[in-house]
Amino acid sequence: MDKNRYCVIMCGGVGSRFWPYSRTSMPKQFLDFFGTGRTLLQMSVDRISRIIPTENIIMITNAMYAGVIAAQLPQLRPEQILLEPARRNTAPCIAWVAYHIRAINPNAKIMVAPSDHLILKVDEYEKAVVKAFEFIEQRDCILTLGIKPCRPETGYGYIQVGERIDDDFMAVKTFTEKPNEELARVFLESGEFFWNSGMFFWSADCIINAMKAYAGDIAGVFEAGIDTFGTPAERDFIDKNFPSCRNVSIDFAVMEHAPNVFVECVDFGWSDLGTWGSLYENSNKNEDGNATGGCNALMFNSHNNIIAVKGDKLVVASGLNDYIVADVDDALLIVPKDEEQKIRIYVNEVKAKFGDKYL
Amino acid sequence: MDKNRYCVIMCGGVGSRFWPYSRTSMPKQFLDFFGTGRTLLQMSVDRISRIIPTENIIMITNAMYAGVIAAQLPQLRPEQILLEPARRNTAPCIAWVAYHIRAINPNAKIMVAPSDHLILKVDEYEKAVVKAFEFIEQRDCILTLGIKPCRPETGYGYIQVGERIDDDFMAVKTFTEKPNEELARVFLESGEFFWNSGMFFWSADCIINAMKAYAGDIAGVFEAGIDTFGTPAERDFIDKNFPSCRNVSIDFAVMEHAPNVFVECVDFGWSDLGTWGSLYENSNKNEDGNATGGCNALMFNSHNNIIAVKGDKLVVASGLNDYIVADVDDALLIVPKDEEQKIRIYVNEVKAKFGDKYL
Repeated sequence: MDKNRYCVIMCGGVGSRFWPYSRTSMPKQFLDFFGTGRTLLQMSVDRISRIIPTENIIMITNAMYAGVIAAQLPQLRPEQILLEPARRNTAPCIAWVAYHIRAINPNAKIMVAPSDHLILKVDEYEKAVVKAFEFIEQRDCILTLGIKPCRPETGYGYIQVGERIDDDFMAVKTFTEKPNEELARVFLESGEFFWNSGMFFWSADCIINAMKAYAGDIAGVFEAGIDTFGTPAERDFIDKNFPSCRNVSIDFAVMEHAPNVFVECVDFGWSDLGTWGSLYENSNKNEDGNATGGCNALMFNSHNNIIAVKGDKLVVASGLNDYIVADVDDALLIVPKDEEQKIRIYVNEVKAKFGDKYL
Repeated sequence: MDKNRYCVIMCGGVGSRFWPYSRTSMPKQFLDFFGTGRTLLQMSVDRISRIIPTENIIMITNAMYAGVIAAQLPQLRPEQILLEPARRNTAPCIAWVAYHIRAINPNAKIMVAPSDHLILKVDEYEKAVVKAFEFIEQRDCILTLGIKPCRPETGYGYIQVGERIDDDFMAVKTFTEKPNEELARVFLESGEFFWNSGMFFWSADCIINAMKAYAGDIAGVFEAGIDTFGTPAERDFIDKNFPSCRNVSIDFAVMEHAPNVFVECVDFGWSDLGTWGSLYENSNKNEDGNATGGCNALMFNSHNNIIAVKGDKLVVASGLNDYIVADVDDALLIVPKDEEQKIRIYVNEVKAKFGDKYL
């Protein structure tokens, strides 16, 4: 395997849209979501380990998850787990890890990936990742993976593609925010729009240069510590300076501004599992359309629900249609499926009323 | 207090209509339903202890509840707790306890009461009970308490009253089954119908004679053991013979046939707490009509629900109207309020599918 290739897995998200299953102390990437014996994070590392040398796989996460990551990924050395002292969204996270890796290997080519996605066709994924590395090794560019859409999803950002560069690689015309349903249908039918997967490829130099150009304030924070990266002084520098970074996503800070952004159009059975709805889409459903995920559930006159309870708890429901019912030890959520985007708001209300107790 | 007065509290019900709060192993009479620190059974005994000598208060229940009753009622001696070896509804239960008490005190006057009702006006209740005893001490008769109805309840049986005998005491014209809503409205408006409370008064001789006349098969079972009652041989006799009794209610076996049945019309803030709906009626509701019973509940766009969860579990619900949500450790029930009469059916389905595990 190529020693210059690195994979950064971002695993600091809090996953509030999956509350109460996903908790601040144990977000969804650390859960065995499908009961297969491996967590989403472990599956992410399993997948990429077939392509990237284990010692080049870097976790970046919030300091509070150091313990769970070490426990779930015993194959990683402690220095492969970068701990953010504060949550600042993806741009500062990606900037730090680029400076960190470049200090270790100035020729590093980096894949950045989320830790909590589902990928069903692993062979297709593997081929696409290899081709992505080859693409950025030949060009000084930013590459993102665009997923071929299969439904008019309103919960994702889309990328409109332009000129074909080579094979599945296209120039990016525009990044779009989450569309309404009508627009999402137009996107789907046009064939020009792909889902923004949040998986990126670039050289360390390329992303650092882009940061300097389009997010100079963030790059400036890390430039001030340029001598510390890859040394024992890095930890202290990060603890003191990382929190001063602006809270902003890599899409908003860099991707939407840089001219050298390309997209590899892929189709490997991807779901961001960002919502109960996407879990529902990916779950087995019984003849009444209820996805009970192997729970003990007796449903009377009830259709198209998602039922998620732990262990062998029994659910008896009647006259319930199109709801999410999610139960854990100390919290129970019952909301209509079409309100899944509001779960974050409800969780904020929980925080406002009860503090961190149920988060 | 009059040493000839006895109170029998029937506390063997399984309370399946309150599943999953009420479990076979811990039915509702043994629960601190309102979080006051006393269970419904303890409140029943507290109430009657102001009128009846403690040593004359008799529990009759299923053998499986011996432990919980002894724990909840330490003031009772073991011989005050009669344990049925099998469930046979109220007629065999009442027959046994009548034979038992008559053997101890041939002049016994007996009140029979459920263990799981709510009574809000205890002073009124106390006066009514004393007057009831006085009434049956002057007449060889069966007396039942009829509750003045306050709504067209379709979940109760009704008693139509006839001639006024004395004060609040009336002759019984008919017993009726549970009416439909239209009929219940007619009953309510007529002023002639009272709810059948399941509280009875009679002398031991009177009820035994009525049993002989109208439920000879049941009386026959106990007549065969006439010499054993009140002796150490009673236990063995009951274990061997009680299970052979017909499974039938006292209303159906005796009350609807006997000519000397009277009703005392009372109004002491009574609820049989037989259903979630009756609990809802008796609970505090917030401005959205949700009865959360002090649970931690955040309700969005949700109205007129009953939410019952244990401890400090949090419920977050949205878009939910007119439902019962009842959660305990290993079971969760979500059904429309107007289906509460079906909960028994659902519990039977649970039993069919999972055996006794969740009962």
